[in-house]
Amino acid sequence: MEPSYRLIISCPDQVGIVSAVSAFIAQHQGWITEAHHYTDPGSQWFFMRYVVRAASLPFDVDQFQELFAPIAKRFAMQWQITDSRVPKRVVLLASKQAHCVSDLLYRWRSGELSFRIPCVLSNHDELRSYVEWHGIAYHHLPVTADTKAAHFAAIEQALAEAQADVIVLARYMQILPASLCAQYPARIINIHHSFLPSFVGAYPYHQASARGVKLIGATCHYVTSELDAGPIIEQDVMRVNHHNSVEDMVRLGRDVEKMVLARGLRYHLEDRVLVHDNKTIVFN
Amino acid sequence: MEPSYRLIISCPDQVGIVSAVSAFIAQHQGWITEAHHYTDPGSQWFFMRYVVRAASLPFDVDQFQELFAPIAKRFAMQWQITDSRVPKRVVLLASKQAHCVSDLLYRWRSGELSFRIPCVLSNHDELRSYVEWHGIAYHHLPVTADTKAAHFAAIEQALAEAQADVIVLARYMQILPASLCAQYPARIINIHHSFLPSFVGAYPYHQASARGVKLIGATCHYVTSELDAGPIIEQDVMRVNHHNSVEDMVRLGRDVEKMVLARGLRYHLEDRVLVHDNKTIVFN
Amino acid sequence: MEPSYRLIISCPDQVGIVSAVSAFIAQHQGWITEAHHYTDPGSQWFFMRYVVRAASLPFDVDQFQELFAPIAKRFAMQWQITDSRVPKRVVLLASKQAHCVSDLLYRWRSGELSFRIPCVLSNHDELRSYVEWHGIAYHHLPVTADTKAAHFAAIEQALAEAQADVIVLARYMQILPASLCAQYPARIINIHHSFLPSFVGAYPYHQASARGVKLIGATCHYVTSELDAGPIIEQDVMRVNHHNSVEDMVRLGRDVEKMVLARGLRYHLEDRVLVHDNKTIVFN
Amino acid sequence: MEPSYRLIISCPDQVGIVSAVSAFIAQHQGWITEAHHYTDPGSQWFFMRYVVRAASLPFDVDQFQELFAPIAKRFAMQWQITDSRVPKRVVLLASKQAHCVSDLLYRWRSGELSFRIPCVLSNHDELRSYVEWHGIAYHHLPVTADTKAAHFAAIEQALAEAQADVIVLARYMQILPASLCAQYPARIINIHHSFLPSFVGAYPYHQASARGVKLIGATCHYVTSELDAGPIIEQDVMRVNHHNSVEDMVRLGRDVEKMVLARGLRYHLEDRVLVHDNKTIVFN
Repeated sequence: MEPSYRLIISCPDQVGIVSAVSAFIAQHQGWITEAHHYTDPGSQWFFMRYVVRAASLPFDVDQFQELFAPIAKRFAMQWQITDSRVPKRVVLLASKQAHCVSDLLYRWRSGELSFRIPCVLSNHDELRSYVEWHGIAYHHLPVTADTKAAHFAAIEQALAEAQADVIVLARYMQILPASLCAQYPARIINIHHSFLPSFVGAYPYHQASARGVKLIGATCHYVTSELDAGPIIEQDVMRVNHHNSVEDMVRLGRDVEKMVLARGLRYHLEDRVLVHDNKTIVFN
Repeated sequence: MEPSYRLIISCPDQVGIVSAVSAFIAQHQGWITEAHHYTDPGSQWFFMRYVVRAASLPFDVDQFQELFAPIAKRFAMQWQITDSRVPKRVVLLASKQAHCVSDLLYRWRSGELSFRIPCVLSNHDELRSYVEWHGIAYHHLPVTADTKAAHFAAIEQALAEAQADVIVLARYMQILPASLCAQYPARIINIHHSFLPSFVGAYPYHQASARGVKLIGATCHYVTSELDAGPIIEQDVMRVNHHNSVEDMVRLGRDVEKMVLARGLRYHLEDRVLVHDNKTIVFN
Repeated sequence: MEPSYRLIISCPDQVGIVSAVSAFIAQHQGWITEAHHYTDPGSQWFFMRYVVRAASLPFDVDQFQELFAPIAKRFAMQWQITDSRVPKRVVLLASKQAHCVSDLLYRWRSGELSFRIPCVLSNHDELRSYVEWHGIAYHHLPVTADTKAAHFAAIEQALAEAQADVIVLARYMQILPASLCAQYPARIINIHHSFLPSFVGAYPYHQASARGVKLIGATCHYVTSELDAGPIIEQDVMRVNHHNSVEDMVRLGRDVEKMVLARGLRYHLEDRVLVHDNKTIVFN
Repeated sequence: MEPSYRLIISCPDQVGIVSAVSAFIAQHQGWITEAHHYTDPGSQWFFMRYVVRAASLPFDVDQFQELFAPIAKRFAMQWQITDSRVPKRVVLLASKQAHCVSDLLYRWRSGELSFRIPCVLSNHDELRSYVEWHGIAYHHLPVTADTKAAHFAAIEQALAEAQADVIVLARYMQILPASLCAQYPARIINIHHSFLPSFVGAYPYHQASARGVKLIGATCHYVTSELDAGPIIEQDVMRVNHHNSVEDMVRLGRDVEKMVLARGLRYHLEDRVLVHDNKTIVFN
């Protein structure tokens, strides 16, 4: 992938935003390789993502920041510019289940997804050997009903030390305290094993089986303090029928979970996801 | 389609059911063209559907009833035998929206689905001309908040006169009284414009848009007295994204709604759906 | 749908195109509601589609043409500007099969798709009554192996008289002469009942059944002089299994065919499809 | 999963087969947990798969063989009985690409798929460390254009030593000699990275991109001496658009390839796949 800058903008809509931004890029000979706009009709809020070839611009990200600031100010933009060569630091939180962790580690070691993994944190020790084979640090942080506060303090510290840009709950199974959620807004990604908003909370496949649905699903979303209610990044489903027991659903569902998580994480890593109210704009 | 008998059985599971049934068929030289079994592991209840070429058996449905009765009694079967040459009588209940009615009438007049339509009932008059072009009776039964009781009495009478085997709520938009639901157990089919159990009740696309889901869906289910909570026959979904307004969802969703309803109705018409507790076994 | 102008551009890629176009729009206070760009990396050809609120610009399409011409010339653009309030004239060519015609007429009469139908042309008379119920002219133009030349001359004349913008082969089943194809480049839309390039030509479901594929499909494409080889606009598939006979595939396939055709036609009517070499860019 | 016997039968269709088989099971108190029948209408060939609880029968597989033989003879059955407790021996043939091997090893070590892996054979050494971490033998058997005969002799010997029941070409990229294919009929499983019969042979994603298809696919099939033309076990597709380069298709396609291969292999391991002419009956 050619080195590039990603310019992400959101601001109140008005005439002239695209013109001002593209004129800025053009006057510096910037080569736009990908462009998306969207205006939310309800709030009249404008969203934009440009990808520009790094080599076509005569400056780096810091200079871009400085030179673009007046335009950003004029339109009251919330914005960021990122360099595709700087991979994000992703900490995985896991439990005993291996499928999401295995899938993400495959995508990481094959280079399919570009990110760093400072460490994997888990309340169980089962996945240690597999993770460590990859040369990745594995921290076992056990938790019981009585030690939740200490556990999450340890998690919080580990995340800070790892300088996590993104936290992925790869079937972590614990509910994060609201204070932790608030520290990483739109930066904690969970995979929930149902087609939300159906089957919030524990044992969604049991709930799905009891209701007799004909499709099971998975939802990748940002974590907020309200359980399974954060902005949805990606979802998908898979057909089941009366033959499929809850155990079958658990097995079949793993394939949807890991695909949906991988797609959602890729969107995030490539700065394709903008959050507005409790919804996402995904430019893909 | 070759004329055939469809034998539908449900009973407590035990050794020897399949053997007894298939021996009965074989001793009369019956030719089985389709066979499905299933045992629900929780309740240990057994379900079965056989299709037998009518021409291979030396008797008609009434004689089948009589001769098979002792076997049915031995295994405490709930059972029925139907003749594929006797199409079911389907009454459509509609409102203003044309997509499900149009789709079902196309499948009816092209012979793709085999059934009779004694009449279409609607609380509006918009679809009259289209329905009547098909040579089908159209009864306009208006309803207001104050005339619900009279309206549903009229519906009930019309259904009785039409000798309805099946009632299809083709986006009818009114909630049937519990007494009417109880008269036609597992014989009233609704299409709900969401992926149930998400977004029960009114305005599901508005609910879906507000939650920011990435897929919209439709659910075909039997109507019970509890709103949108009856046994699910069929479901499907369609991808949407942030660009899609509620109006887009309504438009896109129509395609899913009519497909799901047509599939669900076909399963019912071909005696493929067995209901157990609040779930369906669909032998397809 | 709010009245709007659609600006479609393709030209060799270079720095400054987006900037020039968006500056033009902005200086006239144009409000962009939808925007797509794409550069083909192989040919370095640039494609763009803007939707601008008609009410936001102080001029009509003709003045737009005139004022934008210098920019178009500077960048050697192939371009067009269309007004969403001017529906395209679509002539349907049909045979005996009703599913695609019925589906498109539903979408037309419900207003779901916005276009005019000057007439339906068919080599059979079966669909006359249904089409005429809609108040649409139906021309029966029979054809035999010996009268092909005369038939296509009549078709050609009827298309000219109808001032057709778009011709839809709604399961028309005849191969158009190359001369006719050449008259309407990227304006004749066919629905082929297979997942092209598999199963070109006649009896694709028979071919699919013989090969034992597990999915059947349909392909909506522009017609060129090479059979079933024109630029693909849209495709989709549906699962089948060993139980499904060729007849089942024909029945099931109809649902995919009409959905894929309707989607492809919508993309065309909304000026979302750009053709480059033998491929399409679909901005949706 | 409860221990069970799987009875697989194919024979010319006639009245009484199901009755004879189910009577045999019933007279020995066998408990049928899964049952499928199918008659191919063209060849009038009958196919059947029964799953019977092992604990419900008073004998083992060998005694079943002996006792059932007279019935099998009477109906001229091709048949087999397998014990679910005896996992098949699966040898993986790989090249440099890791995605299918990684996916299958995950499913193996998690117990999701039940089989043994005597060894992995590869013409490259890249995957050694990963495979060996699992405690599985890895044999590097290099091949050049000049050493094909020796290479395949080595492969053949390794397969014999491994007592392979099934051979999986997990993106192995070499064409097996016809003699080797003939040794393992319906026992060599390949994953081809296209929706066959489209794009046979090398570089299917390049072919797909050149044709401008809107969906890419993968096909799991038994290997025969004709390239990419053996009986298809499973297929699936994924949507792409004009934005997706060949490299994107390769990346996206990997997810379809591994899913389709895993599903196809599972069907085979559970004795769900029967081959008839060049097609499969998959009882799932």
